[in-house]
Amino acid sequence: MEIEIATIGGYEEVGRQMTAVRAGDDIVIFDMGLNLSKVLIHDNIRTEGMHSLDLIDMGAIPDDRIMSDLEGDVQAIVPTHGHLDHIGAISKLAHRYDAPIIASPFTLELVKGELEEEGKFDADNELIAMDPGETTSIGDSGVLDLEFVNVTHSIVDAINPVLHTPEGAVVYGLDKRMDHTPVIGDPIDMERFREIGREGEGVLAYIEDCTNANKKGRTPSESVAREHLRDVLYSMEDYDGGIVATTFSSHIARVKSLIEFARDIGRQPILLGRSMETYSGTAKQIGIDFPSDVEMVGYRQSIEQTFERIMNEGKENFLPVVTGHQGEPRATLTRMGRGETPYELEDGDKVVFSARVIPEPTNEGQRYQAEKLLRMQGARIYDDIHVSGHLCQEGHYEMLDELQPEHVIPAHQNMSGFSGYVDLASNQGYKLGRDLHVTSNGNIIDLV
Amino acid sequence: MEIEIATIGGYEEVGRQMTAVRAGDDIVIFDMGLNLSKVLIHDNIRTEGMHSLDLIDMGAIPDDRIMSDLEGDVQAIVPTHGHLDHIGAISKLAHRYDAPIIASPFTLELVKGELEEEGKFDADNELIAMDPGETTSIGDSGVLDLEFVNVTHSIVDAINPVLHTPEGAVVYGLDKRMDHTPVIGDPIDMERFREIGREGEGVLAYIEDCTNANKKGRTPSESVAREHLRDVLYSMEDYDGGIVATTFSSHIARVKSLIEFARDIGRQPILLGRSMETYSGTAKQIGIDFPSDVEMVGYRQSIEQTFERIMNEGKENFLPVVTGHQGEPRATLTRMGRGETPYELEDGDKVVFSARVIPEPTNEGQRYQAEKLLRMQGARIYDDIHVSGHLCQEGHYEMLDELQPEHVIPAHQNMSGFSGYVDLASNQGYKLGRDLHVTSNGNIIDLV
Amino acid sequence: MEIEIATIGGYEEVGRQMTAVRAGDDIVIFDMGLNLSKVLIHDNIRTEGMHSLDLIDMGAIPDDRIMSDLEGDVQAIVPTHGHLDHIGAISKLAHRYDAPIIASPFTLELVKGELEEEGKFDADNELIAMDPGETTSIGDSGVLDLEFVNVTHSIVDAINPVLHTPEGAVVYGLDKRMDHTPVIGDPIDMERFREIGREGEGVLAYIEDCTNANKKGRTPSESVAREHLRDVLYSMEDYDGGIVATTFSSHIARVKSLIEFARDIGRQPILLGRSMETYSGTAKQIGIDFPSDVEMVGYRQSIEQTFERIMNEGKENFLPVVTGHQGEPRATLTRMGRGETPYELEDGDKVVFSARVIPEPTNEGQRYQAEKLLRMQGARIYDDIHVSGHLCQEGHYEMLDELQPEHVIPAHQNMSGFSGYVDLASNQGYKLGRDLHVTSNGNIIDLV
Amino acid sequence: MEIEIATIGGYEEVGRQMTAVRAGDDIVIFDMGLNLSKVLIHDNIRTEGMHSLDLIDMGAIPDDRIMSDLEGDVQAIVPTHGHLDHIGAISKLAHRYDAPIIASPFTLELVKGELEEEGKFDADNELIAMDPGETTSIGDSGVLDLEFVNVTHSIVDAINPVLHTPEGAVVYGLDKRMDHTPVIGDPIDMERFREIGREGEGVLAYIEDCTNANKKGRTPSESVAREHLRDVLYSMEDYDGGIVATTFSSHIARVKSLIEFARDIGRQPILLGRSMETYSGTAKQIGIDFPSDVEMVGYRQSIEQTFERIMNEGKENFLPVVTGHQGEPRATLTRMGRGETPYELEDGDKVVFSARVIPEPTNEGQRYQAEKLLRMQGARIYDDIHVSGHLCQEGHYEMLDELQPEHVIPAHQNMSGFSGYVDLASNQGYKLGRDLHVTSNGNIIDLV
Repeated sequence: MEIEIATIGGYEEVGRQMTAVRAGDDIVIFDMGLNLSKVLIHDNIRTEGMHSLDLIDMGAIPDDRIMSDLEGDVQAIVPTHGHLDHIGAISKLAHRYDAPIIASPFTLELVKGELEEEGKFDADNELIAMDPGETTSIGDSGVLDLEFVNVTHSIVDAINPVLHTPEGAVVYGLDKRMDHTPVIGDPIDMERFREIGREGEGVLAYIEDCTNANKKGRTPSESVAREHLRDVLYSMEDYDGGIVATTFSSHIARVKSLIEFARDIGRQPILLGRSMETYSGTAKQIGIDFPSDVEMVGYRQSIEQTFERIMNEGKENFLPVVTGHQGEPRATLTRMGRGETPYELEDGDKVVFSARVIPEPTNEGQRYQAEKLLRMQGARIYDDIHVSGHLCQEGHYEMLDELQPEHVIPAHQNMSGFSGYVDLASNQGYKLGRDLHVTSNGNIIDLV
Repeated sequence: MEIEIATIGGYEEVGRQMTAVRAGDDIVIFDMGLNLSKVLIHDNIRTEGMHSLDLIDMGAIPDDRIMSDLEGDVQAIVPTHGHLDHIGAISKLAHRYDAPIIASPFTLELVKGELEEEGKFDADNELIAMDPGETTSIGDSGVLDLEFVNVTHSIVDAINPVLHTPEGAVVYGLDKRMDHTPVIGDPIDMERFREIGREGEGVLAYIEDCTNANKKGRTPSESVAREHLRDVLYSMEDYDGGIVATTFSSHIARVKSLIEFARDIGRQPILLGRSMETYSGTAKQIGIDFPSDVEMVGYRQSIEQTFERIMNEGKENFLPVVTGHQGEPRATLTRMGRGETPYELEDGDKVVFSARVIPEPTNEGQRYQAEKLLRMQGARIYDDIHVSGHLCQEGHYEMLDELQPEHVIPAHQNMSGFSGYVDLASNQGYKLGRDLHVTSNGNIIDLV
Repeated sequence: MEIEIATIGGYEEVGRQMTAVRAGDDIVIFDMGLNLSKVLIHDNIRTEGMHSLDLIDMGAIPDDRIMSDLEGDVQAIVPTHGHLDHIGAISKLAHRYDAPIIASPFTLELVKGELEEEGKFDADNELIAMDPGETTSIGDSGVLDLEFVNVTHSIVDAINPVLHTPEGAVVYGLDKRMDHTPVIGDPIDMERFREIGREGEGVLAYIEDCTNANKKGRTPSESVAREHLRDVLYSMEDYDGGIVATTFSSHIARVKSLIEFARDIGRQPILLGRSMETYSGTAKQIGIDFPSDVEMVGYRQSIEQTFERIMNEGKENFLPVVTGHQGEPRATLTRMGRGETPYELEDGDKVVFSARVIPEPTNEGQRYQAEKLLRMQGARIYDDIHVSGHLCQEGHYEMLDELQPEHVIPAHQNMSGFSGYVDLASNQGYKLGRDLHVTSNGNIIDLV
Repeated sequence: MEIEIATIGGYEEVGRQMTAVRAGDDIVIFDMGLNLSKVLIHDNIRTEGMHSLDLIDMGAIPDDRIMSDLEGDVQAIVPTHGHLDHIGAISKLAHRYDAPIIASPFTLELVKGELEEEGKFDADNELIAMDPGETTSIGDSGVLDLEFVNVTHSIVDAINPVLHTPEGAVVYGLDKRMDHTPVIGDPIDMERFREIGREGEGVLAYIEDCTNANKKGRTPSESVAREHLRDVLYSMEDYDGGIVATTFSSHIARVKSLIEFARDIGRQPILLGRSMETYSGTAKQIGIDFPSDVEMVGYRQSIEQTFERIMNEGKENFLPVVTGHQGEPRATLTRMGRGETPYELEDGDKVVFSARVIPEPTNEGQRYQAEKLLRMQGARIYDDIHVSGHLCQEGHYEMLDELQPEHVIPAHQNMSGFSGYVDLASNQGYKLGRDLHVTSNGNIIDLV
């Protein structure tokens, strides 16, 4: 059976991930993501009403025109998890394919939300939920199966899809960390990877998330970030003024830890901001292990009222969890720094960034500015309470050891980001141009 | 009562700490440390046989000749903890003073060791152990008391000595982290600081450890490093080859964690190296909460034999904890990298650095070299599994808040290192030249 | 005669410089500067109509209320050169003093401009031009003289004012580089410093510009930047598309080099932007050695028309010199990057930044963004073609050697910036608290 | 005619360059270099007596065993310039090939020296000198020509060899900077590149030096470094103590500038150190435009005597140019810092590093150590007076524009270093896997 891999998007950047695998006459698409930075560089662009082709020209969504070079029928669109760089282009591209969208429950809910907000296109693809650990048949050949292997990432319900073919498995390895003690959900299923890989049918190709491929060592478990966060918040237990926290809205496990520790130190947590409401609301709704009784406030006006209530009832009784961890100019936390909300920061009030600044000068400038504004109000800053959601080098080493793939394809970075992975894979015996495929957007790799 | 503070050493560097406080006719000396880097820059110097004055000229030990400007009698020499930059000059300087050395039990044992190894001078100062939390009278005036407040640092049994005078307390704040969940011993006694400070007699002067005064946020608890270390070692549970770890020999809590996790993953820990034996042996001997049954090997020849035994019985059954975390050219780990020991590293073997590289180009170069050698043998490197032992900015903020000292004196850094503290203290209302004393080695500050 | 120095502003930052020297009953004020970053952090503030006290509260201008502690009469306000951090607060503060403003001709013209634009206050201080090398008597005592020693900086007509008193000279050493081959004007007058210092009356106090005190070596001459710029522009001689350059508008020597090299490679230089017109126009007007026939365009509408003309006549015939070297969001170059001007950038067009990014995250973010926009249009970027205007460590070393001052006072930085100077001066025998005065805003140093 | 390119060494590192081009039955080898760092990591290894295979195993010299896969006869070995990473393996590998070594005169002399020092092998390849600009016929086919295009680098007599084939030219583009005003020799011959490329026969393949491919802008001309060096040395004209300089021994143009400026400020230059004598002696001998009357001293004992003479006659009359710019532990300058030579450094003496630290922690550590030792003697340090010898991004852009090659092959770096070039080439329309060949050591690229 012929196997081809089309590297459509996310092979020159982090963002707009999209990969298609053709096995015989059947094609499966993994991810359809958005590169938000390509949108934000322009002033005042709203993507909802924009046409796909314009977004492709901007480099914001994958250029899927190469799909016409693949001879076969798309049988499934499979987003791996709910981050925008993996699902953000579905509303712009999925309608072109007569295929269902298959995803884990949390991811699927977020895809639904994306489709509902879309203003230009109307996708009527069937939406199918599949749990981590499950397998489904693909196409009519009877020989292709799609399996969801449970992985751990900075969002819940992340999976690595595996397409089982007669030629071996194709493992789509985006995005994960090797976490044996995640705060929510099951540990990464390394045993299953081993069964598929060195103990089983064998892996024909492994497409790997190279985000941290230039970083040494092992990405710590979420339990390490949780212990760090606990240490920080418990150290504030005696403080009788304001404490505010911010983190990635989609990082449900972190939000959960914030909620729990807030309560441990005698404060009522409140989630504030539209995206906080979206992600945590979704988590609650589909039954993720998440505090069901926490207050969430999404709309600007309600946020202002909540802040007024907090000021009236006493800041020392609350712990608002807000948006703005990257210093985004219009986020709630930045507005607090500018004194634009009813929440009054005072000398000694604590602001906790349970996030890392995305290392790019635009972000760093905005975050620096936001911190400066917060400090001008008297705030004390605690930052960098975080662990990455992506494998570092020792994780990559272990994955190669377990899967022992015939071919490896670095992804989710540009060439500079691939370089650490190329070094590592070369040391493990792979060779560029033979079984180590360094590529770019818009190529087709012919495996069998 | 007149109160003067002589800033003898460690006010232009990290290393060779020494401060004297005169209260009326009585003087107490805090710390007598060694700046090892001033020795190591020269080839082949051994300090044991050297004269104090030569070491003073080299900048290696404090220039205590300024002591003659203080009119009073030295009543006590008080090292705060057992690191060399606090006790390393005692063997060279203490004999000049007719005063006892008062220290916590673990510190005192290490001082004894230093005095025994000294080859040039013969100090017969009385050695007095005093536990954290205890107080003793100083001098004959009847109005001076010396108290040991329990603090937390990267070595056990660290204290902050407080000299209670009729004019208020003088708090000597070197070195500490604010740790509420240390792995060994009691949490930092913040309540006592508060009692002395804003709720009590009041603090006349606070001498502060500025090591991390340019760093944002809060120094994490040892429990965070422990969780990180646990995550790393547990992730290696299935590995059936060699695992080697290194950390600061004096960091008893970390060594303890290494021992425990080694056993948790089915390996026998063995401590290898002279300084490993010294510190852990001392800890065991004086009854610190430390595994009593762990094997320790100090001498070169025994280390080689132990490595041979490990190779014979199977590397997969052991976890050697060795010296060499900074890539020191002659340390055990570096020799392992050079293939100079019977321990054979193989492809995939793990080396765990539970330490941070001291950020100075000489260290960084040596450490880089050591890692390169280890990698040439096939080793996989896990590094930076560590938390600092020194307060960051939010710890300094809290200390000022609890102590509310009249005068603050930044120490344990050079001017560049003081700068973050000066900013912080200035924001809290202190003023340079009035109550914020930025100084250098060899000055006397006249407080009352 | 009593000599006091009031460190009013610029001792905790770069910006809002102001220092007063009292000698007997007479006071001279050096500089009255603006810290622009304290204004820009707020959205939409225009300083022209603001009151001094509000600007003082913001930290934007010096808090001169300490002047009332100096017993004497202000006899002169002496800005050292035309940068805003030295003259930008004159329009807000000078009217409070019954004293003339004495400055070099170019500086004085810029002060005039500032006073004309002021909307809130009406200063009627006498304006007196004095050339570098000249001396004038100060006050009625007959024993005080003010001398302007010629120095070299990144703006023309910079001087170091020296107040000669019976107790020795007070040398106000802000801002300079030791340049023996400046492109415009005379070399720094080191001979005069030597005459005043080690060969002459002697220097009582030296206030030093510590901007680069943490940097090794010697700041290169403007001739080095000129050679670098020549190399870059000459390398583009064969290019037949657009070339655009940007630099500091106030850097007359650099603008001159740009004009000359543009002509050397067959292009017509045009200066575009309001501040370009202000500084270069002033230079031309007062007879500085500057190309008299270069076109300057200041107003937005005229700039657009000029760009249209350039596009009509052919980009390959012009070299626009524009504002925007720091990526300021509203500057001409950034607007070119956004495609908001009639000048169309094409693939391969060259953009030359003859400037260094001011190393602060806000700037770095904006500059990064601007470059990204320019690159999206196809532009090729040449940056960092620049040398600093401030002494590095070897310049400080030489100044101390020539002046041999009794007292040194680091300025024009915060504590972190002072640290390199404190190390250097300490190595030369000065001692903190004795003759090396590390201070902050709002202090008075009593010298005699 | 079949054209293949074998990427033998230097495609995963800087060091051990070697590339072979087969055109029909004839093969030309470009460069045979040594990766010195792979030797130095081991203690006490001397390469002179070592066997090729051991050096190959260490990664020190190219693994040329792949040559057996190329079907043809080696007709020439062509080193491009005299740096060790391009000629250092000739003495270990050339004897295996029955082919002459063809090089520019200066390069050829250095190759001779290498062959004479070799202790293991005896190469009797013919040595043929060919000047930049010349062309010779290769093999018996009558259709292959080898041309030396003059380029500019940090060593004199550098060329880019071009193999003209019926299928187009193969341009071997290592190592160069685009210098229109080099201090010695002719400017880079961009006109000839244009003639070969977009105006001529066309370029089939371009192998490019990616050393600086991640750096923005244009590498400055040697004239910029010379102006910088002039500024530094002239600023010391009045100093009446010791001045010492160091630079790359092989950098003849820089050494020449040092000699000239030393004389301009009234000092006698003396070149000290074995490699100084080798390179400058060779330059003098073959008639390079180099001061013929400068004293050179190579042997340790003579160096000591020279230092004694300098001390006797007065340091202020000399300017020793010594080895040790990277802080190499046994180099002359480092020994001066340790006080191991008769030259006594005093307070205020100047040490000029006309070199950049090679950015690798081992170097950085050694250099830091050397500077510290020099400062302990009182030396003042001037460093970083240098420009790179390699193209930055705008040079790469121009080369692509002039040559318009069909295929480009990044070299002289590892994958991380290639990444900037891949971005640039991709922006210019090349595509990975089609005409942009990212490869590793030991591959064969089949072009025709």
